[in-house]
Amino acid sequence: MRKLRMGMVGGGEGAFIGAVHRMAASLTGEIELVCGAFSSSAERSRKSGIALGIAPMRAYPNYRQMLEVESTLPSDARMDFVTIVTPNYLHYEIARAALETGFHVLCEKPLTTTLEQALALKDVAARTGRLVGVTFNYTGYPLVKHARHLVGLGALGEVRKVFVEYLQGWLAFPVERDGQKQAEWRTDPERAGAAGCLGDIGTHAFNLAEYVACLRVREVSADLTTFVQGRQVDDDAAVLMRFENGAKGVLCASQVAIDEENALTIRLYGTKGSLEWRQEEPNTLVVKWAGRGREVLRSGVNYRDRLCPQAIAASRLPCGHPEGFIEALANLYRGFAEAVRHHEGEPLAPLLDHPTLDDGVRAMAFVEAALQSSQAEGQWKTLKL
Amino acid sequence: MRKLRMGMVGGGEGAFIGAVHRMAASLTGEIELVCGAFSSSAERSRKSGIALGIAPMRAYPNYRQMLEVESTLPSDARMDFVTIVTPNYLHYEIARAALETGFHVLCEKPLTTTLEQALALKDVAARTGRLVGVTFNYTGYPLVKHARHLVGLGALGEVRKVFVEYLQGWLAFPVERDGQKQAEWRTDPERAGAAGCLGDIGTHAFNLAEYVACLRVREVSADLTTFVQGRQVDDDAAVLMRFENGAKGVLCASQVAIDEENALTIRLYGTKGSLEWRQEEPNTLVVKWAGRGREVLRSGVNYRDRLCPQAIAASRLPCGHPEGFIEALANLYRGFAEAVRHHEGEPLAPLLDHPTLDDGVRAMAFVEAALQSSQAEGQWKTLKL
Amino acid sequence: MRKLRMGMVGGGEGAFIGAVHRMAASLTGEIELVCGAFSSSAERSRKSGIALGIAPMRAYPNYRQMLEVESTLPSDARMDFVTIVTPNYLHYEIARAALETGFHVLCEKPLTTTLEQALALKDVAARTGRLVGVTFNYTGYPLVKHARHLVGLGALGEVRKVFVEYLQGWLAFPVERDGQKQAEWRTDPERAGAAGCLGDIGTHAFNLAEYVACLRVREVSADLTTFVQGRQVDDDAAVLMRFENGAKGVLCASQVAIDEENALTIRLYGTKGSLEWRQEEPNTLVVKWAGRGREVLRSGVNYRDRLCPQAIAASRLPCGHPEGFIEALANLYRGFAEAVRHHEGEPLAPLLDHPTLDDGVRAMAFVEAALQSSQAEGQWKTLKL
Amino acid sequence: MRKLRMGMVGGGEGAFIGAVHRMAASLTGEIELVCGAFSSSAERSRKSGIALGIAPMRAYPNYRQMLEVESTLPSDARMDFVTIVTPNYLHYEIARAALETGFHVLCEKPLTTTLEQALALKDVAARTGRLVGVTFNYTGYPLVKHARHLVGLGALGEVRKVFVEYLQGWLAFPVERDGQKQAEWRTDPERAGAAGCLGDIGTHAFNLAEYVACLRVREVSADLTTFVQGRQVDDDAAVLMRFENGAKGVLCASQVAIDEENALTIRLYGTKGSLEWRQEEPNTLVVKWAGRGREVLRSGVNYRDRLCPQAIAASRLPCGHPEGFIEALANLYRGFAEAVRHHEGEPLAPLLDHPTLDDGVRAMAFVEAALQSSQAEGQWKTLKL
Repeated sequence: MRKLRMGMVGGGEGAFIGAVHRMAASLTGEIELVCGAFSSSAERSRKSGIALGIAPMRAYPNYRQMLEVESTLPSDARMDFVTIVTPNYLHYEIARAALETGFHVLCEKPLTTTLEQALALKDVAARTGRLVGVTFNYTGYPLVKHARHLVGLGALGEVRKVFVEYLQGWLAFPVERDGQKQAEWRTDPERAGAAGCLGDIGTHAFNLAEYVACLRVREVSADLTTFVQGRQVDDDAAVLMRFENGAKGVLCASQVAIDEENALTIRLYGTKGSLEWRQEEPNTLVVKWAGRGREVLRSGVNYRDRLCPQAIAASRLPCGHPEGFIEALANLYRGFAEAVRHHEGEPLAPLLDHPTLDDGVRAMAFVEAALQSSQAEGQWKTLKL
Repeated sequence: MRKLRMGMVGGGEGAFIGAVHRMAASLTGEIELVCGAFSSSAERSRKSGIALGIAPMRAYPNYRQMLEVESTLPSDARMDFVTIVTPNYLHYEIARAALETGFHVLCEKPLTTTLEQALALKDVAARTGRLVGVTFNYTGYPLVKHARHLVGLGALGEVRKVFVEYLQGWLAFPVERDGQKQAEWRTDPERAGAAGCLGDIGTHAFNLAEYVACLRVREVSADLTTFVQGRQVDDDAAVLMRFENGAKGVLCASQVAIDEENALTIRLYGTKGSLEWRQEEPNTLVVKWAGRGREVLRSGVNYRDRLCPQAIAASRLPCGHPEGFIEALANLYRGFAEAVRHHEGEPLAPLLDHPTLDDGVRAMAFVEAALQSSQAEGQWKTLKL
Repeated sequence: MRKLRMGMVGGGEGAFIGAVHRMAASLTGEIELVCGAFSSSAERSRKSGIALGIAPMRAYPNYRQMLEVESTLPSDARMDFVTIVTPNYLHYEIARAALETGFHVLCEKPLTTTLEQALALKDVAARTGRLVGVTFNYTGYPLVKHARHLVGLGALGEVRKVFVEYLQGWLAFPVERDGQKQAEWRTDPERAGAAGCLGDIGTHAFNLAEYVACLRVREVSADLTTFVQGRQVDDDAAVLMRFENGAKGVLCASQVAIDEENALTIRLYGTKGSLEWRQEEPNTLVVKWAGRGREVLRSGVNYRDRLCPQAIAASRLPCGHPEGFIEALANLYRGFAEAVRHHEGEPLAPLLDHPTLDDGVRAMAFVEAALQSSQAEGQWKTLKL
Repeated sequence: MRKLRMGMVGGGEGAFIGAVHRMAASLTGEIELVCGAFSSSAERSRKSGIALGIAPMRAYPNYRQMLEVESTLPSDARMDFVTIVTPNYLHYEIARAALETGFHVLCEKPLTTTLEQALALKDVAARTGRLVGVTFNYTGYPLVKHARHLVGLGALGEVRKVFVEYLQGWLAFPVERDGQKQAEWRTDPERAGAAGCLGDIGTHAFNLAEYVACLRVREVSADLTTFVQGRQVDDDAAVLMRFENGAKGVLCASQVAIDEENALTIRLYGTKGSLEWRQEEPNTLVVKWAGRGREVLRSGVNYRDRLCPQAIAASRLPCGHPEGFIEALANLYRGFAEAVRHHEGEPLAPLLDHPTLDDGVRAMAFVEAALQSSQAEGQWKTLKL
């Protein structure tokens, strides 16, 4: 099986997330980085490419040139897909251009900065017949897949309540005014979109909730806050949710929760049982059964009799050998790669799923509805889709 | 120091909460049960009294007679205060009558079934000059007292966000239709009040939030749900809160959260640090400091250099010897007893605090505002006080 | 049912353990303190008695007088049993005298300071027909009882391995030279016996291991250490154990484990499953089943379908309402009281068990064998019984 | 910086550990697999090589041919080092041959099957001037490095006590008789050496103890057990240890601990503080300070002000993004690669350490002493070095 060839936009030297994506793609053993436009500076892009061992001529000065040149290469050399790891405001134009040039796209979240753009992208994808994946990477963890499996099977009964949280503390102070690059663009509505915390991490939580609950959110009531004075976007969000089946949800996201690291958690209560998963200790899933008490499930390739096939496929090691964030992102890359291969003619359907364009669009609808609700003092707003 | 004499209303044989109150009062070593009207049935009251070793003539057929007879006893024999552990709907009339007859009152929460009653009771208390305590017992834990101390000192900076949860699972099924007595009256609006879960456990969470945050809630936006078909009151509540200083809060209470036992937790985030406490493991308090990481505080009488005086006073044992629910309730009883003694002339001010009439009234204002907000589809409602 | 009348030796003002015993006895609702010889100083004994509300004439100047006078009281007034909470070296003479005078005895651990004394006491008890209980209180926890139940049933298969630990840090420094009373006598071989840490907490661990494993230790190999210079007894013990069925055990006890509080834990591995319990979070028991994963059991009176009758009988509150150390000790008192009543003619056999004279004797045999093994550089020594 | 070229012996298709080593080496971004003798079957080796994308002619039929051919290649093409992932009994001959042919060696643990072989290998390495690393991979975790740093600094005072455990449950049943390949050779003294559990995982625990304690073990007293009938090697080990400074240690390893996964833990108590680390949740380190309580340290590249430089260098992601087993092994590979580069002339000393030949030799001395002690009924045996 040949490796898929990947081009990267963004992620040059010093960019945390680009390096992580490369490690994850590499860990799959199925993808190789062949080209990139790693920086808005042509010089930095070239240097990054060399440092990464890319052929110098394929370290392009900008993404437009990358798309143009790569599309002229013979099919056994040109890249198979573009992965986009730039700040949010560039996602739309790059993804659109890549699709139009004929490339599949794997895009960082949030997919776009507005719902309008997301819907437009959906049209382009439909027209061009190219795939779009979105890196809501937390669904790549084995036990998140098993959680969804249990809920989907009905093992926990009908879902009644979903609590999802994503707490961080790194924006508790105005670090964007102290030269922290990540903070700078993430708190700048021009580059991040109108939603701050809500868009940056609230969308992950939203995606996780829908993924695990096997349900769609219908409407939301939100209270967004900007705690750090002078900041232009929200840094804290509380969102009440109503799902299509009558289930209720509470989504809390904050980036001013001091000393919280990356505390994404989900708890779901059904009529027969409940579950709890915490991203910071991802190899454990607690399931509580009505009348039977609490069961602690653990991940590991040897738990074939305890975990669903997707969870096993998403694991590399025997139980007790912790797998983490990079591994989860690698699972997303693998799922996307499998989808690309299948789309290109590989008869086997993908074993691993991955967040799709629709997930990206829904997240933008969530953001828009929550922004509107908060502006309307908590009035319930329906996701427009 | 003489023991205070206590009369009990409710809590006859088979009533869980009455027995717990008696164990707690006894554990203080400062209170003795001398009389009671333990049941709505005169016969059961008498039997309960005998089983409890009360003088038979002081096991009264009803609370009215108890108040009447006790008030005629010489001051060195008659009870000092009444503790009320009946279903909610009786609190008001009993508390009122006790105050009017000249007795101090310690009342189970919620104080009354309506805000109107609570305010009326406040007037009576003011007029009669008698004390009213409310058994929001979770503030009796040593580390809750220390949490409040840290916040009150400003050690965590200005409070920004408070998450408080109280999850139980015992009403996930319609057990009130299967003869479960506790469930019966707690889901009957006639006996429990218009609020179900919100009144029963939401009020505990509300009180804990205000206690630890050293702040008052100004307004709320709520979404109450009745998940179990046919039930007449809410069994799940999500409430967004805004505090007077601009802090935000999220209060989640549920009685349909399968296999949750008594999962009351609070997490508070300030500008300098944060804290987390869980009732089910009450002897641990996690404090997270900006830039310094996580500290795990533990309770114990020997931690005089680490915990505030109230926390030490509320502890009986050296570290590592777990103290629990009964001990916390005993702390509340002790605080109330100290307040009564002080009121009666004891020069020393109480060492331990206890939830007061005002706490009881505020909780009712919270319930009323949340009910109204939920009926108004999440419109923010101000606590009327 | 009348309350049993208890006399206490030791436990005067300021003595931590005496107060805890009184709280525990009181919590049973079945025992009342009627007399005592609370201190080696007659004056302090009298004062303590008054503070405790004992009739002044029954606050005896010393235990001999207490035994003498009480034995002359009419049977409906005199104490039913003596509880001994003095330093170790006094246990033997007091217990012996009490038995000889006709009283049942509940004695703090270790039962005596030598095996020889313990065996002598056993003879006296046999001769006098009086009961002796030993306050190995950690077996009073509900989930310890359930752990024993599971093992006894064979649910975990044949026991292979037992790990038991008891770690404290309070003797990491030479506090006995700074006036710490508890440390003074516990590190003085004259008053504590030849074993320090081994006798003080190692015996608890030993008792817990045998109780939960439903097995007896046959031989031990030990390495005892005195880490704090100048201390006359061990402050750290590592003991390898072999049980009668071929199971192996590792017992670690230390009082120099900095910042450990009262970290008594047991883990047991059988051929079908394993279990883990931690005293500092006593309301949780983890059971791991071969091929089925991990189950988290919790205590609570409402778990009648999940826990054995002893565990339920040892619980007072519904799940999620933590019970702690005092409650566990109260269970021991209740079990002993039930045994006394049964011995005195009450037809019902005790529902709760309690650590017996044999447990006390075995613990002394363990101490002696471990001391000898350590002196013999780890040679295996058989418990002499 | 050019990638180091790696040759692998063992680790063909289906071999768990070979795949993990390749993922780890790849994750460093500094090493590429260029050749291998992946199986004792020439055909399987060839197939594995092809599947791995190795040039077919460099998928050698056996390790001898690999060494011979590779040594004839030009220096800019031939492999830089050999990684050995075969069963234990082959380590010695392959490592020896590789060294003699001029290649550096990274060898799976245990280094050899006897101490004699290990010492012989040390001579060869000294004579040839080649490097030998041993994959005691658990020291590759960031917080293990920080733990060693704290102890080395003296922050915890003088070490008194070390508890180290490694518990697994996968050999609780005679799976070696059911065709489980891993179990087959690991329980076969011919292929695994005279020590079973002790050699397989006890050596990891031993290495971790010495690494974190910054101390060497002087002598041991052991009790080894074979619980599964018919098994030819120990499957459980309890070892008491004495360190050179007078500290004491307890090492427990078991492979019959039902449902334990890979439970390697270390707890260390010094005169000023203590620490605790658990491999299954490797991103957390608990440090307890005398008089100051408990601190929870977490890993993450952004904790430059909280963690030592080695711990930071061993991290790839910001806090809250879990890193696991593969990442830790990658750190070992990176440390070894840095050492190789340094040895080959790179001026910069390695930033990351790695377990060396001496660590491998010491572990064999530990195994031999423990085997002898157990055969001598617990007599203390000195490590012969």
